[in-house]
Amino acid sequence: MKIGILGTGGVGQTLGSKLIELGHEVMMGSRSSNHEKAIEWVNLSGKTAYHGNFSDASAFGEILFNCTKGDASIEALGTCGNKNLYGKILIDVSNPLDFSKGMPPTLSTCNTSSIGEEIQNKFPEIKVVKSLNTMWSGLMVNPMLIGNGGHTVFLSGNDESAKEEVKKILNQFGWKDDFILDLGDISTSRGVEMYLPLWLRTWSATGSAAFNIRIVS
Amino acid sequence: MKIGILGTGGVGQTLGSKLIELGHEVMMGSRSSNHEKAIEWVNLSGKTAYHGNFSDASAFGEILFNCTKGDASIEALGTCGNKNLYGKILIDVSNPLDFSKGMPPTLSTCNTSSIGEEIQNKFPEIKVVKSLNTMWSGLMVNPMLIGNGGHTVFLSGNDESAKEEVKKILNQFGWKDDFILDLGDISTSRGVEMYLPLWLRTWSATGSAAFNIRIVS
Repeated sequence: MKIGILGTGGVGQTLGSKLIELGHEVMMGSRSSNHEKAIEWVNLSGKTAYHGNFSDASAFGEILFNCTKGDASIEALGTCGNKNLYGKILIDVSNPLDFSKGMPPTLSTCNTSSIGEEIQNKFPEIKVVKSLNTMWSGLMVNPMLIGNGGHTVFLSGNDESAKEEVKKILNQFGWKDDFILDLGDISTSRGVEMYLPLWLRTWSATGSAAFNIRIVS
Repeated sequence: MKIGILGTGGVGQTLGSKLIELGHEVMMGSRSSNHEKAIEWVNLSGKTAYHGNFSDASAFGEILFNCTKGDASIEALGTCGNKNLYGKILIDVSNPLDFSKGMPPTLSTCNTSSIGEEIQNKFPEIKVVKSLNTMWSGLMVNPMLIGNGGHTVFLSGNDESAKEEVKKILNQFGWKDDFILDLGDISTSRGVEMYLPLWLRTWSATGSAAFNIRIVS
């Protein structure tokens, strides 16, 4: 499958490299066509890895990952062009972290909205599925790293068939169906984004980002 | 031990009844001295259960539980009288749920503050320990109900010895030390309070409140 990754940070690189390893073709998109980190990633990732600007990557991908910073996501998607986004699944991995007020970061959007909802509202032609934002990127693509994979990943989105497609990608990453929890429509993004402050404080208290939560019932 | 419970709702009643069962004396406090629910609870709970107003309950308790609604907690504590609160441990179980904008509730305070922090700032003479707010009250006092007790309860507070005292009460409720996670000072309340939106949506998606999260690492 052809996949577009929007964003060149650690999350985008980790997801992109895993997708290449799984046999997909991946284009990493950034603000400019010649982003140094994207070029370096392509050079390290072999002949099924490409780079371009956000518009190129969204045109390339049959499925897109939003790995831009939460407070820059709407602007980044705005440069893609509606025809490149039309009808596509966007897996939104972003978080609205605001580092401007010091550490730990606050959220730039929360409580009465979320990045997932804002993207869906602004771009109704996209099928937004929020997922994977609740953990360190190393676990996103390798849940077996801890607890024999027995921990939870969430899904939020309005389109049921889009969520089924995203489940298949999660399965490829190693997530078992029993640990994929569909929370409901895109408004449930508010829940997974507002979990971040607890995630940050748990990280600080335990000294490791290699943890996740498991829903025990 | 003599324990004061501030608030007469389901959480206060569940905690109060468990504390009675464990052999403690409990006074349930409310806005008025003759609150119907408090009187009913006392009548059902035997001769080590008492009721009074917030001031009576805070004077009675060597340790206090705040089980009032988050957005009413400061006002309730304000009626206790500083001499009744001075130096005491307050286990803050409250959540800032705001039902005025419809369901699911939003938070009346979040992101840049929390109820735990606000109480500590307003009443520096209290040793506030935030705990237990992240789950259904049935699990607070009986963690063995699910997953053989293998799920996490958090602690936030500035006073280390107060947190040690609270741990002992959690142990009496059935919490094992391995599943009690000290997040740090009272500012970490922001994490556990902002988890509530995810808790609410998980409840909605799974159809049961008898769940909790386990930190897997």
